[in-house]
Amino acid sequence: MLKNIVAKISDRFPAEAVHAHCDGPCGVYDPADARIKAEAVLSMTKKILDLGAPDTVEKANTFARYTAIKEEQAQKTKEELLILWTDYFKPVHLEKYPDLHDTFWKATKLCSACKVEVSLEHANELMAAVEKVHNMFWATKDRVVNFYKAS
Amino acid sequence: MLKNIVAKISDRFPAEAVHAHCDGPCGVYDPADARIKAEAVLSMTKKILDLGAPDTVEKANTFARYTAIKEEQAQKTKEELLILWTDYFKPVHLEKYPDLHDTFWKATKLCSACKVEVSLEHANELMAAVEKVHNMFWATKDRVVNFYKAS
Amino acid sequence: MLKNIVAKISDRFPAEAVHAHCDGPCGVYDPADARIKAEAVLSMTKKILDLGAPDTVEKANTFARYTAIKEEQAQKTKEELLILWTDYFKPVHLEKYPDLHDTFWKATKLCSACKVEVSLEHANELMAAVEKVHNMFWATKDRVVNFYKAS
Amino acid sequence: MLKNIVAKISDRFPAEAVHAHCDGPCGVYDPADARIKAEAVLSMTKKILDLGAPDTVEKANTFARYTAIKEEQAQKTKEELLILWTDYFKPVHLEKYPDLHDTFWKATKLCSACKVEVSLEHANELMAAVEKVHNMFWATKDRVVNFYKAS
Amino acid sequence: MLKNIVAKISDRFPAEAVHAHCDGPCGVYDPADARIKAEAVLSMTKKILDLGAPDTVEKANTFARYTAIKEEQAQKTKEELLILWTDYFKPVHLEKYPDLHDTFWKATKLCSACKVEVSLEHANELMAAVEKVHNMFWATKDRVVNFYKAS
Amino acid sequence: MLKNIVAKISDRFPAEAVHAHCDGPCGVYDPADARIKAEAVLSMTKKILDLGAPDTVEKANTFARYTAIKEEQAQKTKEELLILWTDYFKPVHLEKYPDLHDTFWKATKLCSACKVEVSLEHANELMAAVEKVHNMFWATKDRVVNFYKAS
Repeated sequence: MLKNIVAKISDRFPAEAVHAHCDGPCGVYDPADARIKAEAVLSMTKKILDLGAPDTVEKANTFARYTAIKEEQAQKTKEELLILWTDYFKPVHLEKYPDLHDTFWKATKLCSACKVEVSLEHANELMAAVEKVHNMFWATKDRVVNFYKAS
Repeated sequence: MLKNIVAKISDRFPAEAVHAHCDGPCGVYDPADARIKAEAVLSMTKKILDLGAPDTVEKANTFARYTAIKEEQAQKTKEELLILWTDYFKPVHLEKYPDLHDTFWKATKLCSACKVEVSLEHANELMAAVEKVHNMFWATKDRVVNFYKAS
Repeated sequence: MLKNIVAKISDRFPAEAVHAHCDGPCGVYDPADARIKAEAVLSMTKKILDLGAPDTVEKANTFARYTAIKEEQAQKTKEELLILWTDYFKPVHLEKYPDLHDTFWKATKLCSACKVEVSLEHANELMAAVEKVHNMFWATKDRVVNFYKAS
Repeated sequence: MLKNIVAKISDRFPAEAVHAHCDGPCGVYDPADARIKAEAVLSMTKKILDLGAPDTVEKANTFARYTAIKEEQAQKTKEELLILWTDYFKPVHLEKYPDLHDTFWKATKLCSACKVEVSLEHANELMAAVEKVHNMFWATKDRVVNFYKAS
Repeated sequence: MLKNIVAKISDRFPAEAVHAHCDGPCGVYDPADARIKAEAVLSMTKKILDLGAPDTVEKANTFARYTAIKEEQAQKTKEELLILWTDYFKPVHLEKYPDLHDTFWKATKLCSACKVEVSLEHANELMAAVEKVHNMFWATKDRVVNFYKAS
Repeated sequence: MLKNIVAKISDRFPAEAVHAHCDGPCGVYDPADARIKAEAVLSMTKKILDLGAPDTVEKANTFARYTAIKEEQAQKTKEELLILWTDYFKPVHLEKYPDLHDTFWKATKLCSACKVEVSLEHANELMAAVEKVHNMFWATKDRVVNFYKAS
């Protein structure tokens, strides 16, 4: 069934045209972009939980900033992941990773969950999802790139 | 195989939690957002082809504007489509539409193709892809909404 | 008096130049863009009223997101309306609709009111204002387009 | 007739509620924001005319940048003007300046003309329109503020 | 020591190339852009302090808006200042104002402080920093431009 | 002299207050953000030089996209660098790296040069400047992080 999908898509974007269809600067994709933002989501989630309910002017100012940064960074994590899914990954990769779509769908839904909730569990799962994408991505390039955290 | 994917995802986002995971104002999704932008991509593609190579100051100014609008609107079409894919569609819909991922992947790759090229064929295919999403979307809501074009 | 204004403007933007002065892709204007955003404003207003004051971490996170979405969508409603007013509508339309300026001024001031307040009344009035613009717009094109709501 | 419009609007936004409907930081409006952007439009228009058609890599790079800056600054001029029209000016001002709507409509249409064309004449007219708004604005505050140019 | 830095930089960007390296429309820099935003930061800071902790729906909506505006305007003040530092000021100015870097570093750090805190003291210091930049800027152009406040 | 600057600034932002003045999620700074964007600038510069003058519709479309991406990525490189300079680096670091300001000033001026020109030399120098910042940054954290390129 997935073979059919791959076949149908390959047919539509024939191998020789694939590179011309990439809409950005080929070769400068890097999942580190998504990882940095996901780290910020995790960091902000922790800080919000530490801060507690906003019952003074100072805490309300800080709470507003922390949630806005969490929202923005979760959105950017989602965007960076989707750039990889729509622009970098090609039918040939889907053949190798049949759970490609599933992986990205779940990862982007985790970004939404991290916005909606203040959940350490989901923020950690998002980091794990980004690490999975990191490994999948560099494997397609036959390169070993260390997954590190900035914080 | 797809059943397995659905099962795995359903497991992760249990039915009762689904609505809480939606990260926007439930019920205000509308594929018309994507359709309007895709119409602009098609319109700009036609205008660029009519204009021809930018060999005077006036034509170069117009050409720059048309390509920038085409780029921006193709990007927005992509974003509007991805909001539907990541936020609106749930595992239960995937069960009903096994080609859900494939449909969106191809549609977003068409957005990129419309940026990279000045292609009437691809711009028309993008309109068709958006119409397919329109039908799929309203069917999930058991509503009949007419697909019209503004231009 | 209004005739004088029309005459003065018509003089400045003579009929044959009008289309060249439109700064976007002619024919792809659609008030649906404004309607979708106005629906989101109304939806968010209801949700904020249902939620109540933000006295826990979870509610404060949700409250912050709801007000930010309301703010953003009210701003976008305003922008979509102003695109119609500044780019689509021409002196010839003002002649037919002498309250054109008044209609848009009030509609955009309602967008501001929906930001400043959490008011069901004003959010409903904004929806009505958008519907009035929808009717006015399609009438200028001699087309009948159904006004529906996505939610 | 205009009196009627004013009356109708005043009725809708009664005097005592006016300030609560202002959606920004009262008192920090300044037409200098629009003037700086309009100066950039004029400057870019001159530079594009001096540059000529983009027939080499270097000139094409510069041409692309100049038109993009012109486009962006004309858009920002429009936005700054519209903030004054929708947020600052109130029914009481319309009574004093019956051509308020007309002034802003023409000024924003000039912004569009400066995008669509490479026209010194329209860029100069835009500067004049911004100066008119400057005078109108400070007169409502009974303040004398000098209109200067940065360039 | 600073002379060495100046020499080294001058060497890298020789006098005759300086203008070609400016990446915007020369001559349309104006510190008024930063001043207007800094005024908004000060205004919002006062309003937040007047408002108090957000313990009702209405106050929480207003609080969210005020902090978001303060954040946005402090960020824009920072950006406007940095445009002057990176694009307008040249090595020749550093020679005349040895504390150029220090002035901008402190001013931008004050923007951050105004985001993090709700501090009248820091908001007033930011206004003073912007006035210092205003004086420094116009002195390099041998022009006398009055420093006024819009509010 | 630099000691005086440091002393003056330290005085203003006393050690114990420093962390509270950081306006983002502490610990999630990573120069990789700037490196990815600088790589894109270099890649686009090469592609523009390979493409040549835009004398057909297809080439003009591609040229417009390449220069827009170069412009955007150079701007983002600048912004990422400035986030490090204004938010991460503190007076204590200036003491250790007396050429801190100079390093960032030159690096951001290189971003502008890469916009203004289509210069392989400057794009390569920008990569080198980003690598210098990378080394300086991780040294302040006593961590060894490998500098790699994604392309």
